[in-house]
Amino acid sequence: MFNKRTRIKDLLSSSTTGQETIVMGWVRTFRNNQFIALNDGSTNNNLQVVAELGLLDEATLKRITTGASLKVTGTVVPSLGKGQTVELKATTIEVLGDSDAEKYPLQPKKHSLEFLREIAHLRFRTNTFGAVFRIRHALAFAVHKFFNEKGFVYLHTPIITSSDAEGAGEMFRVTTLPFDNPPRKEDGSIDFSEDFFGKSTNLTVSGQLEGELGAMAFSEIYTFGPTFRAENSNTTRHLAEFWMIEPEMAFYDIEDNMNLAEEFIQYLIKYVMEHNADDLAFLDQRLAEEEKQKPQNERQEFGLLEKLKFVVDNQFERITYTEAIQILLDSPHYKKKKFKFDVKWGIDMQSEHERYLVEKHFKKPVIVTGYPAAIKAFYMRLNDGCEPGKETVAAMDILAPGIGEIVGGSQREERLEKLEARMKDMHIPAEEMSWYLDTRRYGTVPHAGFGLGFERMVQFVTGMTNIRDVIAFARTPKNCEF
Amino acid sequence: MFNKRTRIKDLLSSSTTGQETIVMGWVRTFRNNQFIALNDGSTNNNLQVVAELGLLDEATLKRITTGASLKVTGTVVPSLGKGQTVELKATTIEVLGDSDAEKYPLQPKKHSLEFLREIAHLRFRTNTFGAVFRIRHALAFAVHKFFNEKGFVYLHTPIITSSDAEGAGEMFRVTTLPFDNPPRKEDGSIDFSEDFFGKSTNLTVSGQLEGELGAMAFSEIYTFGPTFRAENSNTTRHLAEFWMIEPEMAFYDIEDNMNLAEEFIQYLIKYVMEHNADDLAFLDQRLAEEEKQKPQNERQEFGLLEKLKFVVDNQFERITYTEAIQILLDSPHYKKKKFKFDVKWGIDMQSEHERYLVEKHFKKPVIVTGYPAAIKAFYMRLNDGCEPGKETVAAMDILAPGIGEIVGGSQREERLEKLEARMKDMHIPAEEMSWYLDTRRYGTVPHAGFGLGFERMVQFVTGMTNIRDVIAFARTPKNCEF
Repeated sequence: MFNKRTRIKDLLSSSTTGQETIVMGWVRTFRNNQFIALNDGSTNNNLQVVAELGLLDEATLKRITTGASLKVTGTVVPSLGKGQTVELKATTIEVLGDSDAEKYPLQPKKHSLEFLREIAHLRFRTNTFGAVFRIRHALAFAVHKFFNEKGFVYLHTPIITSSDAEGAGEMFRVTTLPFDNPPRKEDGSIDFSEDFFGKSTNLTVSGQLEGELGAMAFSEIYTFGPTFRAENSNTTRHLAEFWMIEPEMAFYDIEDNMNLAEEFIQYLIKYVMEHNADDLAFLDQRLAEEEKQKPQNERQEFGLLEKLKFVVDNQFERITYTEAIQILLDSPHYKKKKFKFDVKWGIDMQSEHERYLVEKHFKKPVIVTGYPAAIKAFYMRLNDGCEPGKETVAAMDILAPGIGEIVGGSQREERLEKLEARMKDMHIPAEEMSWYLDTRRYGTVPHAGFGLGFERMVQFVTGMTNIRDVIAFARTPKNCEF
Repeated sequence: MFNKRTRIKDLLSSSTTGQETIVMGWVRTFRNNQFIALNDGSTNNNLQVVAELGLLDEATLKRITTGASLKVTGTVVPSLGKGQTVELKATTIEVLGDSDAEKYPLQPKKHSLEFLREIAHLRFRTNTFGAVFRIRHALAFAVHKFFNEKGFVYLHTPIITSSDAEGAGEMFRVTTLPFDNPPRKEDGSIDFSEDFFGKSTNLTVSGQLEGELGAMAFSEIYTFGPTFRAENSNTTRHLAEFWMIEPEMAFYDIEDNMNLAEEFIQYLIKYVMEHNADDLAFLDQRLAEEEKQKPQNERQEFGLLEKLKFVVDNQFERITYTEAIQILLDSPHYKKKKFKFDVKWGIDMQSEHERYLVEKHFKKPVIVTGYPAAIKAFYMRLNDGCEPGKETVAAMDILAPGIGEIVGGSQREERLEKLEARMKDMHIPAEEMSWYLDTRRYGTVPHAGFGLGFERMVQFVTGMTNIRDVIAFARTPKNCEF
């Protein structure tokens, strides 16, 4: 019944005129009691609705305010305004919902991102967040399209888990036990056998280990779901709840893994460039204006569109960790003691080191491989023939300009004895991981995988500098609104 | 380097022969020291690999056991076996990973679903679960494809929430507070301001309320994410963690909502019928065999494929709740007192009532609308012109044969005063929901939406009768393995 409207995106992209049509949307601006800029969220571009003088009575004219919702019937006519080919000459305008101009928080002016974060339930109605979340949608769809075309199976790995072996970070407890008077065992400790799942459970930090179980049957799988970190990090780069994509592939070594990750990232960017040109153009302009406010030496080298085009057109640089450390040691930056943290073989590179490599030295995305075993997870494959004390693993991190680590992955240790030895060294209880070890007991194969932080990818493509601005409702320490 | 293999699905679906190729996969069976059935998870069909006598030494022959992983190089040749056009004549066979035939839990025989649930980490390697999870993948992809084509924006609504107004069920607490000696306020109650988010938080039961915020900007959005119920239901129909799809559309009334839901379900089924014909054929056969074990009067009327075709080809029945009650009251079943629960206007229909309507009376999916307001949620739109005491809301449930409720939805109450009155009646604190009410304060529009339980949809399409068999790793009371 209502669903006979034409989406504004479709209307604006067609060049036929003369037809009667119905549009519905929200008023962005109303000028001269005649020109309504109407938006329905299908595109950043507003439809100009022309209400000729005399069409509306005084009372209705007053109700057409920023934020009000309208149903407009009219005739599509060629537009004389610039930036649009058609507009709508209204025959009837019905106000579906009013918006008190005095109280509506979104005035037709520029609001700060900080302010908009406080009204995250309304910020989708702004140009910036409209563009960001349409791009987020396009990226999510492109993720599924990419893997579906390659025959990967999408696996929903569990969100609630009793396993905490991955060690990727602090975890949130999931429980139905009461804090007042929880059940206790004879020794006084909490009796989690009384909890909902009969044991202590947490929110997952990664679906990788379960993903490996899928890869050992379907060869190639991917996950795309929420993951969690209970870390008290109040930064522009961290969320307590974020979405991650984790492909896991049997019969892949570290090279295959890097090739897939690079192809994947380039595919995602290309997809958005093709499908969201208007949104990207808007964000490109937005970023350019933001950059102009900065002192010359802090400005980014590339504009947003330039950067994306560059990443799509150029291969990522591939270097070993050992080479990366050498580059840092040889850098003028190091010699002038400009790094805050020490540089030597064996360190877990800090953000400042990674940024130096991608932003100053290579000026493009860099894949670093062969990290010291000591700083990496137990499931990463030990490289053969390492010098004693300089053991490395077949890990890879992809570092992106402006973002830092965007992908972390590795070839997995498929050799049972080596995996067991590593787990023992790292005090990971093998009994609890028996299901995981079964994949190495029965038909083990070389395999690899990686994780892409989805929000960081959205940041990279949209140019938004605060991660809270690329997820609908951010969860961060002391903040769980909406 | 490894990634030069041909996927078995691609190999079997091509008819060219004579080319050299590499395949990798897991041994399903090995007959006569010559014929290996190899599976790589890309399809339910095994590739027949022929190892001519003399190709392999005695030691290697012994290592080719069920579950072992192989890399095979060979020539594609026409096959004489039935059900396949090509096979692979091996030139080299390398055992990548052994599988101790004595210990490997998956023997080449039929295992019970109960047993396979206990080894859920290996069950993906069986024909049944291979088919189920490839279909689950296809359904998930079809969900995204359907909405993307219609211009809906995919919104990731939050998993951790401080809102508990939806009242859809019992919730899990998410916390980082210690059970031993949690912080307390002066009055002795737990001080959740010290918790990670500065307040008491839970796992979401639905993304709908946040979804509505998105629809008020993008017009049409959908969510597809995990949702949770901390209910102690140990049934074949309930999970503590499951995935739900929740579209939410501005400018839709209840009719538009029903039309969309019906089109959506038919689209999903058609997609799987087109893309997973082999998997469906296997499951059709499997179900037919299972049915044969049952007494005649318990058997289902339709086979799996018949049922799916019927649902795609026929419109869903649409009746009001009032009509549904009348049908039940008029039924021979009721007259013979065969219903366990009472039937009268006002009841929340039980599973037995819903099953009677779809399985006995209409024998097809049924959409029931106009439920009593008293048994439905606060956000559902009150129908105009109801008899006092017989108020109904513009709700709709879709009931499917063999599954019961598969979709629940409604037109939402867009009128601020009516919504506030309803919330007051139902003791829902308006202060905490101020962000939700803002959508009715500023440019409110008629809108509607529904939720589809993804696992129930997978059950419907695969014919699996226990919901634990259509999710990778089920979370149920006292069960959180893997």
